[in-house]
Amino acid sequence: MRFKVNFPVEIFFGEGEADHIGEIAKKYGKTAFAVIDPFLKGSAVEERVERKLTEAGVEAVPFYEVVPNPTVELIDKGAEMVRNGNYDMVIAIGGGSSIDTGKAIALLATNEGSCWEYTERLGANVVRPKVKGLPLISVPTTAGTGSEATPYAVINNPAIHQKCTIVSPMVFPVASIVDPELMMTMPPALTALTGVDAFSHAFESYINVNAHPFSEMVALESIKRFAGNIVEAVKNGSDIKARREMALACTFGGMAIAHAGTTVPHALGQPLSGLTNAPHGGTIAACLPEVVEWTLPVAAEKFAVVAEILDPSLKTESVNQKASRLPLILENLFKEIGADVTFGGYGLKEDEIEGFADTVYTSFQLDLKGHPKVATREDIIYLIRQCM
Amino acid sequence: MRFKVNFPVEIFFGEGEADHIGEIAKKYGKTAFAVIDPFLKGSAVEERVERKLTEAGVEAVPFYEVVPNPTVELIDKGAEMVRNGNYDMVIAIGGGSSIDTGKAIALLATNEGSCWEYTERLGANVVRPKVKGLPLISVPTTAGTGSEATPYAVINNPAIHQKCTIVSPMVFPVASIVDPELMMTMPPALTALTGVDAFSHAFESYINVNAHPFSEMVALESIKRFAGNIVEAVKNGSDIKARREMALACTFGGMAIAHAGTTVPHALGQPLSGLTNAPHGGTIAACLPEVVEWTLPVAAEKFAVVAEILDPSLKTESVNQKASRLPLILENLFKEIGADVTFGGYGLKEDEIEGFADTVYTSFQLDLKGHPKVATREDIIYLIRQCM
Repeated sequence: MRFKVNFPVEIFFGEGEADHIGEIAKKYGKTAFAVIDPFLKGSAVEERVERKLTEAGVEAVPFYEVVPNPTVELIDKGAEMVRNGNYDMVIAIGGGSSIDTGKAIALLATNEGSCWEYTERLGANVVRPKVKGLPLISVPTTAGTGSEATPYAVINNPAIHQKCTIVSPMVFPVASIVDPELMMTMPPALTALTGVDAFSHAFESYINVNAHPFSEMVALESIKRFAGNIVEAVKNGSDIKARREMALACTFGGMAIAHAGTTVPHALGQPLSGLTNAPHGGTIAACLPEVVEWTLPVAAEKFAVVAEILDPSLKTESVNQKASRLPLILENLFKEIGADVTFGGYGLKEDEIEGFADTVYTSFQLDLKGHPKVATREDIIYLIRQCM
Repeated sequence: MRFKVNFPVEIFFGEGEADHIGEIAKKYGKTAFAVIDPFLKGSAVEERVERKLTEAGVEAVPFYEVVPNPTVELIDKGAEMVRNGNYDMVIAIGGGSSIDTGKAIALLATNEGSCWEYTERLGANVVRPKVKGLPLISVPTTAGTGSEATPYAVINNPAIHQKCTIVSPMVFPVASIVDPELMMTMPPALTALTGVDAFSHAFESYINVNAHPFSEMVALESIKRFAGNIVEAVKNGSDIKARREMALACTFGGMAIAHAGTTVPHALGQPLSGLTNAPHGGTIAACLPEVVEWTLPVAAEKFAVVAEILDPSLKTESVNQKASRLPLILENLFKEIGADVTFGGYGLKEDEIEGFADTVYTSFQLDLKGHPKVATREDIIYLIRQCM
């Protein structure tokens, strides 16, 4: 056994932590390029954060050009603004898209070229960052991507219908403020899809061939908190305990993939968003039960552990029985929270399947190699069809 | 709930990891001040580490002046040598004493004065480090202190019979190489006492009033690994699995106290070492069951969790029943591994008890405040007498 723990992010967790953004930010300088989810424009959250920054002597210049599945064009535009300005740090406030946009801009502030050149693509000439980016402070307002705790920035290239990822320890935020109060206003559908994403991080890192004692520990902690709270968070968004637990599930899920990575569901989900602009969590919900079914019995022991956390009544069953129940448990849960979606429903067309499978192959080798069962191109096509 | 995760240490874990010390060290420069346990002088471990460093172009200048319960004098001497030399980093190889010596020297390399001025002492004018120290790489050869994963350096001041601690995020190593193979040669008695220390870190941080989801998670993970492997590690030191699990228990225990701190057992144990030079793990073993007994029933729920991990046969008992069994479980376990020791046995004299209690009060307020039950000076005296 050989593994590495590397987690250079200061996490400030708790209700009201957003009020401390001024103290945290001023350690890094006086001017911030603030990547803000346009949905927050003029909101109480934005006003509060801005006030706290101002009180601490930090000037924040807002940048609202964030879209779901953030694009090369907008990121490169933001990076150019930072390069031409005089900024000490980047602050990203919003969901995963805002944080990934902020991460890529912070990296490009000190590294030349376009963000796309830095994304992982098999056979392509991937540029590695030469120097650290500007310090990035992330403030998530959803409980899903775990981006506040990862060295990843996912980027969409609409011109070629691809969605790829920058993978580098230099992408970690220096600090993340995880304040469950900021997540209270998420509507049920968003809570459900982002929640599934958080779960998938913990789950995929747990079953990953690169899993190790540290990543497994945080993954299981995340799954336990997800299991006990996702339904309540969706059905009763004002339940602060459920929001807090889902926020923890999300951050721990991020820590887990930061150490062991994702697997086949992300290899399928990310390019689907590139192709159809489907929401990331939805693409995962659409394929997770099918991927588990296909993977059985290769990962039966770990599937059994997860199945029992999600349904403690399985306790006395055998490992294989527990594991074989997991696809149905997930399907039922996703139905209960309104996340019963399909690739076809997101607009994937029959004649796009082959090209989609090729993208999975060229751009998501890291995920495929992490999966406990080897996926051939035919397997990928089979799985995509199952998810239609 | 409000907490912070801050763990800026890269942990390289695994059998054979020590062979990678060259690659790891060369990121920090070309010359290292190497604080080495004198016990390792001329050993295969030392030869191997030196060769790997040389191959990577890193020159290591050895410093063997490490003693158990490292002293102000030797640390200040080492710091002076580093200040007068031209070093890029400090490397510490050995048990907790070597690592704490290395930590303090690395900090003092760039901060003026004596190490003692930086230790926590109530009412004293504690100097806070102004700048980061030299990068410190730690290579533990015991599984106990968890010093490879903490922001603490414990220092003994024999002139005044006190043992106090530097507490600062600047004390964290930049990297720690945790190689269970280096721990294979620990004799049973050392394995037992260092193992108790590792357990006490997990346990004290778990019951600490400052505990939070992250610290509790790593603490329980540590306790599980300790419970399943301490006896085997003591009785069969060549069992690599037991050594690996104890190394994990130790590092996770360090991560736990790095986030939530220690409590009354450390408040009693550390000054006892200052007074009598007793081994640190022994001072903890001597008081842990008594402290648990005295703390009941204030922390019954958490004691019950720990009791059940140590003795799964308690599963069906009530919380209070489980908790009340914990002192005896610990006593029996310590007896089984040969760690049934007492304060009296370590040379504490009746007429020293009052002065001892005063030291606990002046220098270990952080630990006392972390304990789930408030300890008055009378309580401390009572506890010391119980441990005689």
